[in-house]
Amino acid sequence: MPARRGPARRGLDRGHGEGSGPHTIAGMTRGEPSGTDAGMPPELIRLRSSIDNIDAALVHLLAERFKATQQVGELKAAQGLPPADPAREERQIARLRALAHDAGLDPQFAEKFLNFIIAEVIRHHEAIAAHSTD
Amino acid sequence: MPARRGPARRGLDRGHGEGSGPHTIAGMTRGEPSGTDAGMPPELIRLRSSIDNIDAALVHLLAERFKATQQVGELKAAQGLPPADPAREERQIARLRALAHDAGLDPQFAEKFLNFIIAEVIRHHEAIAAHSTD
Repeated sequence: MPARRGPARRGLDRGHGEGSGPHTIAGMTRGEPSGTDAGMPPELIRLRSSIDNIDAALVHLLAERFKATQQVGELKAAQGLPPADPAREERQIARLRALAHDAGLDPQFAEKFLNFIIAEVIRHHEAIAAHSTD
Repeated sequence: MPARRGPARRGLDRGHGEGSGPHTIAGMTRGEPSGTDAGMPPELIRLRSSIDNIDAALVHLLAERFKATQQVGELKAAQGLPPADPAREERQIARLRALAHDAGLDPQFAEKFLNFIIAEVIRHHEAIAAHSTD
């Protein structure tokens, strides 16, 4: 039984036996999210499989992003910098809107998305700051 | 009711002259999001640059995801399938939580993230369905 790793422990909510190894949960393999697509049009199954691949990539990128913002939070706390940085956020929003526009994504959605992420980041940073002043 | 644009046109909202070409907007190049990081610790600048790269990747993946769900929406509307599919969503959430856990991302955040995306997708699907029954 491999020893459990640090941050990877977060949200360890399996609850059941783990005999099937790290790549199955409750009998579901990571590569077969679709379960019962029986009776669905083949084109829909194909599209869902692409969406599932994209979602896996998004989750891994988000994991990397929070690793980076975690480090930013620790740096800011150590140097007494404020958790939020409105000027930086404004630049990020303008840039992401522009990127979204070029990629055919609704810029308004890109902005909402960034705000959603930033809200979580600030929550983390405040937790770090509160901790570091204990 | 003003005719709302179809999803393909989504986000075409420059409004101003486009003389500066597709890779600059308001004089800002895509590669220089950081603007004025002057005086910041070098480590913070480095991390912010990684975050900006990750965000660009996220935006492009989201653009691809909405292209796929757009097709799903059209397929569902054409076949009279309901926009939402709670069983599919449940499977997606379980899978993404598991992937998040393995990647060191808070599974609860991954679930919140998926719900955030799905809410947008359903909004699009409903718009398509409403349109197709005009």
